Amino acid sequence: MIDAAALLEKVRKEKPLIHHITNWVTIYDCANVVRMVGALPVMAHAVEESSEMQGISNALVLNIGTLTPKLVESMIEAAKKANELRHPVVFDAVGVGATALRTDKAFQILDSVQVDIVKGNSSEIAKLAGADVFTKGVEATEVKENVALLAAKIAKERKNVVVVTGEHDVVASADKSYLIKNGHALLGRFVGTGCLAASVLGCFAAVERDAGKASTAALSCFGIAAELAAQKEKEPAAFKQQLFDALYSLDADTVKKMQKIEEFK
Amino acid sequence: MIDAAALLEKVRKEKPLIHHITNWVTIYDCANVVRMVGALPVMAHAVEESSEMQGISNALVLNIGTLTPKLVESMIEAAKKANELRHPVVFDAVGVGATALRTDKAFQILDSVQVDIVKGNSSEIAKLAGADVFTKGVEATEVKENVALLAAKIAKERKNVVVVTGEHDVVASADKSYLIKNGHALLGRFVGTGCLAASVLGCFAAVERDAGKASTAALSCFGIAAELAAQKEKEPAAFKQQLFDALYSLDADTVKKMQKIEEFK
Amino acid sequence: MIDAAALLEKVRKEKPLIHHITNWVTIYDCANVVRMVGALPVMAHAVEESSEMQGISNALVLNIGTLTPKLVESMIEAAKKANELRHPVVFDAVGVGATALRTDKAFQILDSVQVDIVKGNSSEIAKLAGADVFTKGVEATEVKENVALLAAKIAKERKNVVVVTGEHDVVASADKSYLIKNGHALLGRFVGTGCLAASVLGCFAAVERDAGKASTAALSCFGIAAELAAQKEKEPAAFKQQLFDALYSLDADTVKKMQKIEEFK
Repeated sequence: MIDAAALLEKVRKEKPLIHHITNWVTIYDCANVVRMVGALPVMAHAVEESSEMQGISNALVLNIGTLTPKLVESMIEAAKKANELRHPVVFDAVGVGATALRTDKAFQILDSVQVDIVKGNSSEIAKLAGADVFTKGVEATEVKENVALLAAKIAKERKNVVVVTGEHDVVASADKSYLIKNGHALLGRFVGTGCLAASVLGCFAAVERDAGKASTAALSCFGIAAELAAQKEKEPAAFKQQLFDALYSLDADTVKKMQKIEEFK
Repeated sequence: MIDAAALLEKVRKEKPLIHHITNWVTIYDCANVVRMVGALPVMAHAVEESSEMQGISNALVLNIGTLTPKLVESMIEAAKKANELRHPVVFDAVGVGATALRTDKAFQILDSVQVDIVKGNSSEIAKLAGADVFTKGVEATEVKENVALLAAKIAKERKNVVVVTGEHDVVASADKSYLIKNGHALLGRFVGTGCLAASVLGCFAAVERDAGKASTAALSCFGIAAELAAQKEKEPAAFKQQLFDALYSLDADTVKKMQKIEEFK
Repeated sequence: MIDAAALLEKVRKEKPLIHHITNWVTIYDCANVVRMVGALPVMAHAVEESSEMQGISNALVLNIGTLTPKLVESMIEAAKKANELRHPVVFDAVGVGATALRTDKAFQILDSVQVDIVKGNSSEIAKLAGADVFTKGVEATEVKENVALLAAKIAKERKNVVVVTGEHDVVASADKSYLIKNGHALLGRFVGTGCLAASVLGCFAAVERDAGKASTAALSCFGIAAELAAQKEKEPAAFKQQLFDALYSLDADTVKKMQKIEEFK
């Protein structure tokens, strides 16, 4: 069984440095959620330093929410260094399926470097699996295919872990998959939840080599914090603030009690 | 009479996608306020995708708060697509009158594409009307001329709607104008209120062809949410959080009761 | 003795315009903290307007948290104008010692223009003083040398004021130095405190020519607001919101009572 609490404590003990090349919308929240979980963020996107900054970091989180071709160039430089040093690389495929630029650049990243964890919503992941789908800006649209199967297909082909966020999150790898039933509907009521989740994935992957375990534990902890926050606040802005504080205060015993993870094939 | 409540409900029902090319200061809040109102935001500024992203969106919001010439190029590409598809274009003329770059680029945008709603504070709008005024960074300075008349002048010449934000907001069009008396002084105590208002304008314009009606309804709803938030919190940061939640929770009956709109010539 | 309360009131009365060329992570908070203190922010980074925008402003705050070479070029243009007009220049040396780009560009700025107040954490300042240290992304690492002495060394060489943030803040100048014992540990629990402090330094420097006095008063007021906020909230996200409101509400009498400043050689 996956011990999310133990990994959370490992993050807090090791305080890994999580290098982000991310978007300008949620960049503050991505950095701050890393602090709440107990790790340290650094946001550095200049191509002149992205490789060197990755060299002193422990993980890389890439997010194409407000991509430009130049930013993607810098992402690839950083990811090459991460690959060289065996640092985990998380890629949040924001808006893939909305424009050719996003779809093309996502494939360019996946084909140029080894991404350890690919994350997206259902239509982003379906698009990466080759399905004929459309993403409404950065919002998922309905996907006819079984998205968990599409995720597992990518995972098998790319030898990595694929995370699909949604009402329940899916973590797919070549051999086994997990369903994470923690979380709360209020997570869907404000901007940036997906980006936050990707940053938390980076924190856990930095301390656990098995990307499937790391992802599952990360999403469970994030979802539990959301459940706790929802007990205190019912409106999006107040809830969001509580979510950050709930992550900060999350203790191992609570995680053990509330963790809802199911393994499936 | 303008039925702001009905338009708010239309936004929530249709959930239009509001494409922004905006500034790096308030970009998160602009996206989030769109979600609070019930629409969906997408922030995409790369010139390689701005036209295509606009193609799948329902409205365009442009904001030159942290402009560069390259960003303006992308704005014009997106606006041309919006014009072609008859999507409404909102332009927030942040800092016009402060530097030559801002003033020149604002005129370049207005002269290159059809902007449906131009928004600014009193000195930004006065500058666009040709008055000899100065903007203190992004803050309005005193304008000697009657700003409502200057706004109407621009509206007539450019065949669009001109919004002047201030203690009371003005919505001017060629034939008639509105004064929106909703709002609260606390809106002026934190950064970004004007940007938020422009994003809300985009949401309403996406569901109502008459830009004057859409603007008036949007500003009234935004102002009502501020009045409700001010009943709960008196300090800027706490008030701001309440404002977002008040927008999220705003119901049609409350809007009907609290709406304060005056028509004038 | 330094009268922090009097300078705070001067900021509120004069409402100086504080031009920032800063990072994309904390840009909103930097702007907003300026409003909370009672001054006005403007964030303008395009090289085509940075000099002109500085021309109408009262101080310049530079922050290399997410630098690019192009952004630094714009910083230098703005700083040259500030020097010409004798506007104070604050430079927050974020991440110096982490990558060659950050270290090189920091020295390029310091060597190209007169910076009135250099700010950093202990390892950033030690690096600027020539010590063989390393910065963990944007986080301080342990420095063996006496950082206050290193700060004084820089101050003497560069004829400016050097601020080292930490548990207690140090303000070093060629002839005398101050230790500011206001503040609270919760300031270290969320992202961006250092950036906020630099923006507050800019506000005070805009109204007080003596950069040592201005810096000391600014940090004392900021620290007092943190102490007040910590009386109300104990978790990082809630505390951060309180901090902004505490700054907004801070009155002169409270500052007088709570100010903890020590002079030392």
